[in-house]
Amino acid sequence: MKGSSLLYFGGRLFTAQSLFNHRISDSSTLSLSASPRPIHNTTTTNILEAVEEFCTLLGKDHVSVQEANLIGHSGSEWSSYTATQAEKPNIVLYPSSTSEVSSVMKICHRRSLPVTAFSGGTSLEGHFASTRGGVCIDFERMDKLLALHTHDLDVVVQPSLGWEDLNELLAEHGLFFPPDPGPGAKIGGMVGTGCSGTNAYRYGTIRECVLSLTVVLADGTIIKTRQRAKKSSAGYDLTKLFIGSEGTLGLVTEAVLKVTPLPQYQRVAVATFATIQETADLVARVVESGLPLSGIEIMDDVQMRVINQSKVTSRTWIEATTLFFKFSGTPLGVTEQIKIVKEMAKNNISFEFATSDDEAKALWSARKEALWSVLAMKRDAKDHIWTTDVCVPISKLSEIISATKEDIQKSGLLGTIVGHLGDGNFHAFLLFNDAERNIAEGLVHRMADRALELEGTVTGEHGVGLIKRDYLPREMGQTTVDAMRTIKAAFDPKCLLNCDKVVRMEEPRADKSRT
Amino acid sequence: MKGSSLLYFGGRLFTAQSLFNHRISDSSTLSLSASPRPIHNTTTTNILEAVEEFCTLLGKDHVSVQEANLIGHSGSEWSSYTATQAEKPNIVLYPSSTSEVSSVMKICHRRSLPVTAFSGGTSLEGHFASTRGGVCIDFERMDKLLALHTHDLDVVVQPSLGWEDLNELLAEHGLFFPPDPGPGAKIGGMVGTGCSGTNAYRYGTIRECVLSLTVVLADGTIIKTRQRAKKSSAGYDLTKLFIGSEGTLGLVTEAVLKVTPLPQYQRVAVATFATIQETADLVARVVESGLPLSGIEIMDDVQMRVINQSKVTSRTWIEATTLFFKFSGTPLGVTEQIKIVKEMAKNNISFEFATSDDEAKALWSARKEALWSVLAMKRDAKDHIWTTDVCVPISKLSEIISATKEDIQKSGLLGTIVGHLGDGNFHAFLLFNDAERNIAEGLVHRMADRALELEGTVTGEHGVGLIKRDYLPREMGQTTVDAMRTIKAAFDPKCLLNCDKVVRMEEPRADKSRT
Repeated sequence: MKGSSLLYFGGRLFTAQSLFNHRISDSSTLSLSASPRPIHNTTTTNILEAVEEFCTLLGKDHVSVQEANLIGHSGSEWSSYTATQAEKPNIVLYPSSTSEVSSVMKICHRRSLPVTAFSGGTSLEGHFASTRGGVCIDFERMDKLLALHTHDLDVVVQPSLGWEDLNELLAEHGLFFPPDPGPGAKIGGMVGTGCSGTNAYRYGTIRECVLSLTVVLADGTIIKTRQRAKKSSAGYDLTKLFIGSEGTLGLVTEAVLKVTPLPQYQRVAVATFATIQETADLVARVVESGLPLSGIEIMDDVQMRVINQSKVTSRTWIEATTLFFKFSGTPLGVTEQIKIVKEMAKNNISFEFATSDDEAKALWSARKEALWSVLAMKRDAKDHIWTTDVCVPISKLSEIISATKEDIQKSGLLGTIVGHLGDGNFHAFLLFNDAERNIAEGLVHRMADRALELEGTVTGEHGVGLIKRDYLPREMGQTTVDAMRTIKAAFDPKCLLNCDKVVRMEEPRADKSRT
Repeated sequence: MKGSSLLYFGGRLFTAQSLFNHRISDSSTLSLSASPRPIHNTTTTNILEAVEEFCTLLGKDHVSVQEANLIGHSGSEWSSYTATQAEKPNIVLYPSSTSEVSSVMKICHRRSLPVTAFSGGTSLEGHFASTRGGVCIDFERMDKLLALHTHDLDVVVQPSLGWEDLNELLAEHGLFFPPDPGPGAKIGGMVGTGCSGTNAYRYGTIRECVLSLTVVLADGTIIKTRQRAKKSSAGYDLTKLFIGSEGTLGLVTEAVLKVTPLPQYQRVAVATFATIQETADLVARVVESGLPLSGIEIMDDVQMRVINQSKVTSRTWIEATTLFFKFSGTPLGVTEQIKIVKEMAKNNISFEFATSDDEAKALWSARKEALWSVLAMKRDAKDHIWTTDVCVPISKLSEIISATKEDIQKSGLLGTIVGHLGDGNFHAFLLFNDAERNIAEGLVHRMADRALELEGTVTGEHGVGLIKRDYLPREMGQTTVDAMRTIKAAFDPKCLLNCDKVVRMEEPRADKSRT
């Protein structure tokens, strides 16, 4: 672009080339070099004037410029991206309705203020890092269950309702919402991330559990993607486009979620194995059998040792690669499934199944406490946990897990493998301090590289954020990323919404090649 | 737009207003009035020159301008849209690879030739009507199964492989592909339509059964939406955006499909009811129970009478509203499910279940033959069948089916109700001749109106095509349709691909308000 003249058009600056390439071009995709440069206005004057407008709109109590609050809205202890001191919003807003969010966005659009969205704040890849300042919209006050249609198995919720709270409310009606990401996650962020969890093997990810979304677009336009019917072939599937878009295409202000009857009967079985290959072989056999299991989870030998050492559960476990099977259905159906899986697993070290609800809970407790057990191993307060994830075709699991374990062992870091093996999706939990950050980062990136080599994805459920953007061209090809950029530029021409996350809209600085 | 000056820019004509509103605007949505006018070039000279280029590219044998062939590629006896004599492509092309499709699109893009795509030709709402002439790409030669990964439960196919042929190939490996739309449908069109069928209750629609797509965009760019892993949170969900886009955003040249192990054990039960209310009540109870049934299908009393009269099955059925339940799983699990459903259905007229595979087939035969039985009732060769569909929340089924049956009865036409009641989705099959077309059309539109009033959709699985476009603003709101138009204009600025289907890109002519 160097040396080309700048044009001012429609309130924005363009190079003549980018104006032609992008806005007037006939091509179907948008390359990074042809993208119009995002022009934001975060000057003090603009911010001060905006604060005044926001106070009038929302009331003073719902507009915050308090330093600690600003910092708290750009990162967390869990995030693999470390925000710099400068990376924080200028203002945090607490709207109470879709209409208020729309009015906020109209102001931000007019003033060219960049915007990040915040609900649970539990995301892992720097999704809500406020790298460009501006406004953070915290949905805290929009945390209600608005309607429950028990006969239709759907529920209408606001974005700051947490999945755990939702499930408490639903349980009274014999229902639940299957996606079970990390504790503290809320519907808005879960939709944005395209999350899943241990139930995805049976019930699908959150992509399969959302019927409709109300979304506020970059210019304040409100859209509702669909009605409440269980299926529709009417028009483009905008619902799915917003799921996993990480706040870059619009802000979810309401969601209609599919809910599911709580299983009548649930049991858990635990099997241990001598090798990763044997573990993966059994997973493949169970998956190929088509048995309707609720979940197939792995924890490796290191993770089982950590569970024992940290004493987070009430029993002592065999320190070998372990599979946790969740069965649910009718009593006879479950009993039959357990029998079939036990027969398949007859050559492994151990196979234990719960005969009561309490035993099932005790067996499942190890899976539930996995992350906490690693946290309990912190050497001091300066240790961090890096939680990363990849997903590969089932037939590649043995190869990638074995190589990743070997890599972790060589690195000298404490690192465990935990995951949703029925989906081919697993995590590494890495314990590291600031001096060891490079080592952890190397492990994470090599794990992603391996997933790509094996026809997998660099993230099965945690999303891209700032950390994994530059893998996308390798994962799906440059033209595919350019097609994603077409959508971003079409919906948000000023690049206000979580600008530069998921898909880069501006060339990286030389010092920030990977993040 | 009248009276405003026209500008020539980037090879296209714009009004000053539309240029400003759309291509240089900062807004997130695109209204119909702000859309640039599609400028196609179907002059004889351009067509003749294009034919020459296509012959060089594909070989003469794969370029057709034969009149009967052109007509055959713009409509079918099944379609509810009747193509005019002028509505046919100028050229039909038979490419053999993704790369050839890309080259074809580059030529069409350069020459501004509109394009329709054709695989099975079984769609119902005028999806492939060649309303603007130009090129029809028939994928006939791209009908291969390219790879089968039995351990990963996925298969790589070309767009003209039919689902029935695919399932024959998969059965040898104990696998199947769940979506089961009308006979003759092929993968390309199934993806385009966002189809489903009787298996969607358990396995989801085709949206849930596609892992990745290779797509050629309007300018010839080739993209691959994802890798083969079962889940991914990497970037926007382009796969889902193309599913159900009816050939308006890109041409699917390859698909990676999720396949499923054939159930070990399958049984069918049939129950009859005195009223629609009792039928819908049982469906609601079964759905709320969370039992993992494979399908819950309805045929109304008229449909059962037609089955008997047409003698398409080997037995005589009770002529009352009938539910067909498909059960699958392990033998004990299925037996238990049948027992539970039978108990729920104890107050209805009859409940019969198959004790053998042959009996199951005999019971299911009535469901399978529904459409053929109505066809057998044709009074003469000039009769047509209009197959329409809507989908509503389960709790609204009784109301909408009762009202629709009453409406059909009043109309004097023979019309039956058949459908996937577990999803809230059902069809009307209407028998009519040309003199009765208006009556049939009225029934169809009132059925769609009712679905909208009941928080439903005007199409659960057949798609929008030309017939149902003008319901979309009422179904999801004008801003939502404008957001869809944003995507269409961004991916296909020249409006080459199936222009004006799904979402209008040009104001309707006064005489064509509904189609």
